[in-house]
Amino acid sequence: MPTHSDPEQHGGTATVQRLAGARAVADELGLDAVVVTPGSDLRYLCGYVAHAMERLTALVVPRRGEPLLVVPRLEAPMVAASPAGALELELLAWDETDDPFALVAAALQERLGGHAGVLAVGARTWAEHALGLQRAVPGARLELATPVLDRLRIVKSADEVAELAAAAAAIDRVHARMGEWLRVGRTEAEVGADIAAAIVAEGHVAVDFVIVGSGPNGASPHHELSDRVVVAGDLVVVDIGGELPSGYRSDCTRTYAVGGAPDAETAEWYAVLQRAQATACAAVRPGVTAEQVDAAARDVITAAGWGEAFLHRTGHGIGLDTHEAPYVVAGNAVELVPGMAFSVEPGIYLAGRHGARIEDIVVCTEDGVRLLNEGPRDLVELPG
Amino acid sequence: MPTHSDPEQHGGTATVQRLAGARAVADELGLDAVVVTPGSDLRYLCGYVAHAMERLTALVVPRRGEPLLVVPRLEAPMVAASPAGALELELLAWDETDDPFALVAAALQERLGGHAGVLAVGARTWAEHALGLQRAVPGARLELATPVLDRLRIVKSADEVAELAAAAAAIDRVHARMGEWLRVGRTEAEVGADIAAAIVAEGHVAVDFVIVGSGPNGASPHHELSDRVVVAGDLVVVDIGGELPSGYRSDCTRTYAVGGAPDAETAEWYAVLQRAQATACAAVRPGVTAEQVDAAARDVITAAGWGEAFLHRTGHGIGLDTHEAPYVVAGNAVELVPGMAFSVEPGIYLAGRHGARIEDIVVCTEDGVRLLNEGPRDLVELPG
Repeated sequence: MPTHSDPEQHGGTATVQRLAGARAVADELGLDAVVVTPGSDLRYLCGYVAHAMERLTALVVPRRGEPLLVVPRLEAPMVAASPAGALELELLAWDETDDPFALVAAALQERLGGHAGVLAVGARTWAEHALGLQRAVPGARLELATPVLDRLRIVKSADEVAELAAAAAAIDRVHARMGEWLRVGRTEAEVGADIAAAIVAEGHVAVDFVIVGSGPNGASPHHELSDRVVVAGDLVVVDIGGELPSGYRSDCTRTYAVGGAPDAETAEWYAVLQRAQATACAAVRPGVTAEQVDAAARDVITAAGWGEAFLHRTGHGIGLDTHEAPYVVAGNAVELVPGMAFSVEPGIYLAGRHGARIEDIVVCTEDGVRLLNEGPRDLVELPG
Repeated sequence: MPTHSDPEQHGGTATVQRLAGARAVADELGLDAVVVTPGSDLRYLCGYVAHAMERLTALVVPRRGEPLLVVPRLEAPMVAASPAGALELELLAWDETDDPFALVAAALQERLGGHAGVLAVGARTWAEHALGLQRAVPGARLELATPVLDRLRIVKSADEVAELAAAAAAIDRVHARMGEWLRVGRTEAEVGADIAAAIVAEGHVAVDFVIVGSGPNGASPHHELSDRVVVAGDLVVVDIGGELPSGYRSDCTRTYAVGGAPDAETAEWYAVLQRAQATACAAVRPGVTAEQVDAAARDVITAAGWGEAFLHRTGHGIGLDTHEAPYVVAGNAVELVPGMAFSVEPGIYLAGRHGARIEDIVVCTEDGVRLLNEGPRDLVELPG
C-alpha cells in the first residue's frame, strides 16, 4: 500500500504513489487494467476534477506500461490547468467523431500485448462507458475496481484526516447556528434554504444534502424537505453535509426539540439513542470489526425495546465521497485500522410520530477513536 | 411508441403509457428486462426522483409480468410520497442486510421463468449496480437500455416542449441581467456566483453549470470559472443552465464584449459565427439528419477559414438531462422528427486570444423549427 500524503499535493509524490499503488493492487488481484471515470476515484488517483458526462473521460491504469488519461479534446486545456497537468500523464485527447473506446482498446493492446482479459471499472462508472469499453476490447470481462480503490482509499492519511476534521468543524458551525433558522411557523423548505446558504458560508464549496425532518417527517430517515410548518413541541432531525474545496465531505446529524422541552417519555427514549451512539463510538479501536460497531449501537437500542425502529445500518465511511467504505453494518467483518473514517449514526424512528438520529464522523486511531464532530449530542432545545 | 403527455402528470395515464412503451420496445428488441436507476430514466418512467447512491434503487421492467420498483426499506416512505406512489407499482423494499440483486434476480425468475438472458441497464446506471445484477442472474448478458429510452424520450410531447420553453425563458431572463454582474475588475468566480444565484432566483431549482470564459479562457470551451479578472476589451463566453422543478433543463450561451466595442476584425469573425448558428437553426426541419444540421454550421465556419477552430459538435438533445439524444454531430444520421429538442451551439476558439459561442435550444416542428431562446444573438456590448 502506498504512503498517503497531502491530498492537496496532486501532481506530487502522493499522487504518483497512489497510481503506483493502484497498479500494484491490480496486478496482485489479476486485473489487467483499472479504468476510472469522473468522480472521486479519478480525483483521488490523479487530481483531475471533471464532470461526468456522455463524452468519455477516463484514467486507464494498465497492469504493465504507463497510465493514460483519456479526455475529449475540447477539455484538454482543463487537464493542463488542473493538478493532473503536473503529473505528465500520457494524454489521449479524442475528437468529436472519434470512437474513444477503440482508442483505449488500441492503447491497452499496445501495453498488454493483447492480454486485456479483465478490465476493472470504477464502481460509479456509467454503464455506457463500462460496456463501451468491454465491446471495444475483444474477449474482455468486466469487474469492479472497488477492491483496488477501497484498499487505497479506506485508510486516510494524516492530511486526509485533517481535511475531514476541517469539514466536520465547518458543519458543526452550521449546527451551532440552527436557532437562527429553525423556528415554529417556518416550513422545512424555508429552514433548509437557510441551512444550505450557511453550509456554503461556513466554508464548503457545495451542499451535498439537507434533511430537515420535522415531527412525523423525522420518522422517514431520508426525508429531505417539505412544506410542513414546524409547530411547537416538534422534534426535528437535521442531517446536513457538504464538500470542502479539497473534495472531502462533512456529514452530521443532530435532533432538535423546538418550542418546548420534550416530555419525560421522549427524553427517556432519546437517552437510549444517545447511549447507543456513545457506546458505538467508544467501541471503535483497531481490530474491532465494522459489524461489531454496528452491534454496539444496535444492542443498546434493542435492549431498550426499540430494535425494530432502528431501520438502518449504523454508519458509512466518508472521504472524497459521502458514502464509501467501510460500511458499518451487520455482515461487514472488515477489521478497523488506524485512519479509517466513518459515521456513527444510529436512529430510532416511530412512524406517524417522530424520529431522532445522532451522527458523528469518527476516525479510528492507534489506540481508540477520535470524534471529529464536537457539537452537543443532547436533544438540543430551541426556543421556537 | 406511447403518446406522451403532461410531464407533471406522473401516476397518471402518461406514465402508465411510458411503462407500457418501454416494455413494448424492449420486447421488440429482444431485451428480457429494462433496469433503470436514479436519474432521468427513472424519473421519466415512473416519476420517482431519487439520489444515486450505493444502496440499490431500481425500476425493473420485465418483458413479461408486472414492473417492480426496488428501494431500500428506509426510503419506502419517499416512494409513497412521490408521484410514483400513485402508480401502485409493486414495491420491493429491501433491508440493510439483504442482497437486493438476489431479490431482483428472484423476481425476474418468477416473471420470466428463468429466461432473463439479456438485461438492459440505463446508460448512467453505476457499474456496481449493473455488474451486481449481472452476477445475480445466472448467464445474464448486459446491454444498454439506451435504444429503449432514447426511442421514448427523444421526441418531446407538447407538454415537455412547454417545460423546455419555460426553462429557456428562465435562462433568457438571467442573460438579460448580465450587465448587473459582468463588469471590468470582477473575477469570473465573482460573476459566476451572482449568475448562479440568479439562475435559482429566475425559477430553477438547481444550477447545472456556469461557464464564464473571459479573454483567453473563452478559447477553452468547457472552462468554468477562475480568479481571472475581467479587463476592458474582453470577449466573455457565458454558457449557463439549470433545472426546473419538473426536471427539464435550460442551456444557453451568449458572448459578451465588455468595456468597449470589438475591433473590426473581431466583429467580422463573430459575424461568421452568427451566420453559422443562424444557418444551422434554419436547416432544422423534419427529414433532415442531425449530421446535416452539424454540417450546416460547420460549412459556414470552414468556408470562412475557421474550421479547425470549431472544436466540437454543433449540439446535443436536451430534456430531463442537459445532454441526451439526438446528438448533432457528424456520423449521426438520425432523421429529425417534430418534437425533437436540441441545442445549436457552434463556437470558434482562438487559443491564447479568445473564443465565442452562440447557443439556442430549438425544437423541430411540423414544418421547420422553433427557437426556444429569444435573447439577442449579437455580440452583446456591456459598458464595463
